[in-house]
Amino acid sequence: MGSESIPTEQWAQVVEKSGGPVVYKKIPVPKPGPDEVLINIKYSGVCHTDLHAMMGDWPLPTKLPLVGGHEGAGVVVARGELVKDIEIGDYAGIKWLNGSCMDCYYCRQADEPLCPEPSLSGYTVDGSFQQYAIGKANHVARIPKECDLEAISPILCAGITVYKAIKESGVRPGQYLTIVGAGGGLGSMALQYAKAMGIHTIAIDGGEEKGKMCKEIGASEYVDFTKSKNVVQDVKNATADQLGPHAVIVLAVSEGPFQQASEYVRSRGTIVCVGLPANAYLKAPVFDTVTRMINIKGSYVGNRQDSAEAIEFFRRGLIKAPYKTVGLSQLQDVYHLMEKGQIAGRYVVDTSK
Amino acid sequence: MGSESIPTEQWAQVVEKSGGPVVYKKIPVPKPGPDEVLINIKYSGVCHTDLHAMMGDWPLPTKLPLVGGHEGAGVVVARGELVKDIEIGDYAGIKWLNGSCMDCYYCRQADEPLCPEPSLSGYTVDGSFQQYAIGKANHVARIPKECDLEAISPILCAGITVYKAIKESGVRPGQYLTIVGAGGGLGSMALQYAKAMGIHTIAIDGGEEKGKMCKEIGASEYVDFTKSKNVVQDVKNATADQLGPHAVIVLAVSEGPFQQASEYVRSRGTIVCVGLPANAYLKAPVFDTVTRMINIKGSYVGNRQDSAEAIEFFRRGLIKAPYKTVGLSQLQDVYHLMEKGQIAGRYVVDTSK
Amino acid sequence: MGSESIPTEQWAQVVEKSGGPVVYKKIPVPKPGPDEVLINIKYSGVCHTDLHAMMGDWPLPTKLPLVGGHEGAGVVVARGELVKDIEIGDYAGIKWLNGSCMDCYYCRQADEPLCPEPSLSGYTVDGSFQQYAIGKANHVARIPKECDLEAISPILCAGITVYKAIKESGVRPGQYLTIVGAGGGLGSMALQYAKAMGIHTIAIDGGEEKGKMCKEIGASEYVDFTKSKNVVQDVKNATADQLGPHAVIVLAVSEGPFQQASEYVRSRGTIVCVGLPANAYLKAPVFDTVTRMINIKGSYVGNRQDSAEAIEFFRRGLIKAPYKTVGLSQLQDVYHLMEKGQIAGRYVVDTSK
Amino acid sequence: MGSESIPTEQWAQVVEKSGGPVVYKKIPVPKPGPDEVLINIKYSGVCHTDLHAMMGDWPLPTKLPLVGGHEGAGVVVARGELVKDIEIGDYAGIKWLNGSCMDCYYCRQADEPLCPEPSLSGYTVDGSFQQYAIGKANHVARIPKECDLEAISPILCAGITVYKAIKESGVRPGQYLTIVGAGGGLGSMALQYAKAMGIHTIAIDGGEEKGKMCKEIGASEYVDFTKSKNVVQDVKNATADQLGPHAVIVLAVSEGPFQQASEYVRSRGTIVCVGLPANAYLKAPVFDTVTRMINIKGSYVGNRQDSAEAIEFFRRGLIKAPYKTVGLSQLQDVYHLMEKGQIAGRYVVDTSK
Repeated sequence: MGSESIPTEQWAQVVEKSGGPVVYKKIPVPKPGPDEVLINIKYSGVCHTDLHAMMGDWPLPTKLPLVGGHEGAGVVVARGELVKDIEIGDYAGIKWLNGSCMDCYYCRQADEPLCPEPSLSGYTVDGSFQQYAIGKANHVARIPKECDLEAISPILCAGITVYKAIKESGVRPGQYLTIVGAGGGLGSMALQYAKAMGIHTIAIDGGEEKGKMCKEIGASEYVDFTKSKNVVQDVKNATADQLGPHAVIVLAVSEGPFQQASEYVRSRGTIVCVGLPANAYLKAPVFDTVTRMINIKGSYVGNRQDSAEAIEFFRRGLIKAPYKTVGLSQLQDVYHLMEKGQIAGRYVVDTSK
Repeated sequence: MGSESIPTEQWAQVVEKSGGPVVYKKIPVPKPGPDEVLINIKYSGVCHTDLHAMMGDWPLPTKLPLVGGHEGAGVVVARGELVKDIEIGDYAGIKWLNGSCMDCYYCRQADEPLCPEPSLSGYTVDGSFQQYAIGKANHVARIPKECDLEAISPILCAGITVYKAIKESGVRPGQYLTIVGAGGGLGSMALQYAKAMGIHTIAIDGGEEKGKMCKEIGASEYVDFTKSKNVVQDVKNATADQLGPHAVIVLAVSEGPFQQASEYVRSRGTIVCVGLPANAYLKAPVFDTVTRMINIKGSYVGNRQDSAEAIEFFRRGLIKAPYKTVGLSQLQDVYHLMEKGQIAGRYVVDTSK
Repeated sequence: MGSESIPTEQWAQVVEKSGGPVVYKKIPVPKPGPDEVLINIKYSGVCHTDLHAMMGDWPLPTKLPLVGGHEGAGVVVARGELVKDIEIGDYAGIKWLNGSCMDCYYCRQADEPLCPEPSLSGYTVDGSFQQYAIGKANHVARIPKECDLEAISPILCAGITVYKAIKESGVRPGQYLTIVGAGGGLGSMALQYAKAMGIHTIAIDGGEEKGKMCKEIGASEYVDFTKSKNVVQDVKNATADQLGPHAVIVLAVSEGPFQQASEYVRSRGTIVCVGLPANAYLKAPVFDTVTRMINIKGSYVGNRQDSAEAIEFFRRGLIKAPYKTVGLSQLQDVYHLMEKGQIAGRYVVDTSK
Repeated sequence: MGSESIPTEQWAQVVEKSGGPVVYKKIPVPKPGPDEVLINIKYSGVCHTDLHAMMGDWPLPTKLPLVGGHEGAGVVVARGELVKDIEIGDYAGIKWLNGSCMDCYYCRQADEPLCPEPSLSGYTVDGSFQQYAIGKANHVARIPKECDLEAISPILCAGITVYKAIKESGVRPGQYLTIVGAGGGLGSMALQYAKAMGIHTIAIDGGEEKGKMCKEIGASEYVDFTKSKNVVQDVKNATADQLGPHAVIVLAVSEGPFQQASEYVRSRGTIVCVGLPANAYLKAPVFDTVTRMINIKGSYVGNRQDSAEAIEFFRRGLIKAPYKTVGLSQLQDVYHLMEKGQIAGRYVVDTSK
């Protein structure tokens, strides 16, 4: 059922107590249950959530000791007796949702990210900052063989999340979507997904350099909030009929940008909130929301089908996420940079170093 | 093109200056343009909006002098040369939306209430507090002959509005819908529409009397916010799987009830806001909205098809709105009661008195 | 993991060779795998499909020897180690879809009935014509404790199937749905589900007795094809605006009734085909289908969520399926009656006799 | 209301009796009614429907004498008193649907092509094969000033029709759409619209030349039915997961290709039929349609919003329809070529010659 080459010990980065740091050490290689697979993780993206998990920033407590990470790409090396549709040697990925009950009201309707009893990689179960990680066979991402495991790792959380948000926005090809925070890691992927979907994007961010980058990767228009005298009017003017965009994705909700979005979005349009800033609130005037029939939605992570679709866009070469690779042993350094806000693009860790 | 029996003068209630009062006097009977009909109004419901219009409470200025009213039911007595699908003698109704451009982005998609250049009955054009009112033939409600014109008048705004909100909620037959403010005029209609649509309702309001009424007209459950120790939990418990209702309609948004709705609504559920309280705001925590994928929507008035559907439910005898009828000459008295908050149910004015 | 009271042998009806008959005999009680449950079947409905399976009427070969049956209701007596959300003692049901891969394109999107590798109860795996039957825990129907196991058994296939067809039709509350074959077992359930969903039904069948029954259980109108001089016109006249029904469910497609449906269905309307008559074809004129934008759909069985919803309507007392109960030992007699076309309503077998 | 430069006489091609030919002669310039515009037609596409109209091929009788044509692009030169949102000098287009009642069940829901009392350009009212044509202001296409009137004329029927069909197919960006008859005039536009919408297309047609053209304008794959040994398998193989395309558009339904489409379309997929071949029928096996839940739809012409969207894709330079221009005086020659099947691409007539 498995393979002889699986070692009994492996390198991992372990959070031993809430607040960190991570400790690079040898730990046992876990064994998959009947409905699980064991993946030899080659690369894993590093997400802000991993830092939050280590620091214990959120109300939900983490497992301890904890191996973080939820953007892990690797090779299946063992599988449980019930697992039939994934083979030893296949490429697979560890996502934020490691497992779910598969039977509740949400799981039955393909909304498994809303399952009230989820397993969360690198949070309630060990994640991808180790050389061998476990995932429920139902949930591990199927990665086609022609994909590069290093490049695809950031797709497994960031890519899927923005793709899901675009789907939730309801924007159709030929319509306009505004991305607030378009110049960041999530934003640049969102621009690329939207373009591949035939959607016109209006990128909002600050500074000329970000504007240049946004235009290069496909934004139809760029609004620089550091220079615009009237962001609301500029966004409306960027649409052919000047009625404003059909939807807006706000990548890190804060009061000002959300308020602007509710003003420039087209009547009947949708504002999708993504990301989990602590203690932030949505606030919108009732009068305008009602008479303009505005729709405000939260979007979390993608389900299994969203994930497959997001990966397929990557496989076709339509999504390029900029990243920098370091050894798994250097994870704490990455966290330090993250804390200082010194990261542009995504860091990926190589588990062999 | 019209009929000889149309007089040249008629009784009307006229707002001569912002702030009121209404003046009961004779004014000329208007003549329909090529695409308009003239309706001999028999009855008209009185809505809080009419009081706001007279008082000039809202930022948008009204026409002056103004004949208010937007729930008028009567008989077509003349029509313009282009009007073909409505006959002299047919029953018809004046709604809030008196006319729209019919050609813009919204009108083309049957969202004519969002037309940026609407004519609003009793606000930007004269309404139904007169014996003969004009409506654009495209927009006047078609009322079947078997309907009672007195009883149907409150349907023309209140009924259509709550029916639209239920449609916007996306709730399907067999699912749960919570109505906040279920014991009021809009609420009691919402309960009846929902029941006729196979939807289970959880009514929220205050007091035993309202509870009794809500149950009688079809609420599956009643939660009395004046007695409940935990409204959020009580609402969840009222659903068979205790996950909370699939949607919530908040009939007069204020911060506390909206906050509760965002807590008890099922993940992936929808909160629909109806009504236009001045200076009110929606406020919801980002974390919960995102991880539970909650949807917050504003719903305004129904379009022409929604109106036809809402009227059809009434025609089948499924909706009974309690009302009290007085003469049109007594309109100012109704406003006085309204200002004192002494109205239960709806007032209807009879234009013949 | 199980219970001491499970016997090692049980009574079952076994198809030993294609063409039948069924043999009433003792066979071993099966043991559930890690992701399965063992259900002590109390009652099972008998469906025409069971006869087709025994006779080998369809191209797809059955398992042999075979225990038929796919409408089995009973009590969970054992469960595999991975099963967590269903308890020993819970009520559960065996449906047509006994299991599916849970991972393919269809399963990922909650279309598990379209899984290319399904397990079919009483066809490719043993079904409910035995005292102890196995089902995949993901797929067995969850039956609330207040339900009567005898009465609910026909819901598990017939009820779910018609409920799914109504959902697929896209008909909304207040709209019209025509049921062709409304007087039969599936039809009478369809009328009840539609009524509970706020939908107006136009029943089509033959004879006065069926008409009386259809009206009693909720049909808005009845068209007797043995007496109508013009079925197409009569169905259109049964709708308030005479444009015809918004959708049609054809319960056993044959050329004449399907052709009529394509004529009386409203433009933009939907015709849903249910049931699997051998060698039957849909045939519709291209000109009319295009210029009237008609939609023709096949609907198979419900998914897990559809099943839960269909059961919930039953639990609320809104669906009453007429049935007659005999001992499991008499199954062959039921098949004889079925072959002679002498069955009105549904037969249920009691596995204790 | 109009302009002094409008002449009283103009050149037109007139069908004086059913069966033709067209007669090139001077006729009076018509005057717009209160809700109409007069367009100085510069160019008009020639469609097979125009030939059918002249020949009286279809059951519905045409107006006589008749000016054909329904792909006319020109400049507004006069408008009726009610027309407000289109100006003298604006570009506008005459489409197949010249007018509709705007008030019926269909018009109220933006399905005006299904209006039971339509005016059809070049069929029940005079069309675009004249220098000055009338259109209802609600229905004439709004053409942006930066568009070339010659190049856009074929978009006004062919382009809108295929764009509508793609929308009706329900295919989302990243999914697969098969176009049957991809190498023809409609097909090549369909390939371009689909590409602009992020959809992968599998083109089916005959011959290498058509294959080359299909690939050049954006087809992901080409299946040559004159060479393929197994069209069904080849189409399935052209999809990444080999489950077949999510939808199929059959541009001229005939029995063989439709039958193939029902075999290779993915389960839950949609087959959209476009075009009006005389006396053709759809035919599909019930068993497969039901168990695979296949959806068969007819798609007619686009509504006003579909038209605006189709034109917007053209304005952005994403759609290039090959055409050849001749003088309006040569229309009968075009019909001769059409009868002989000697037309590749579209003919456009210049009304100034």
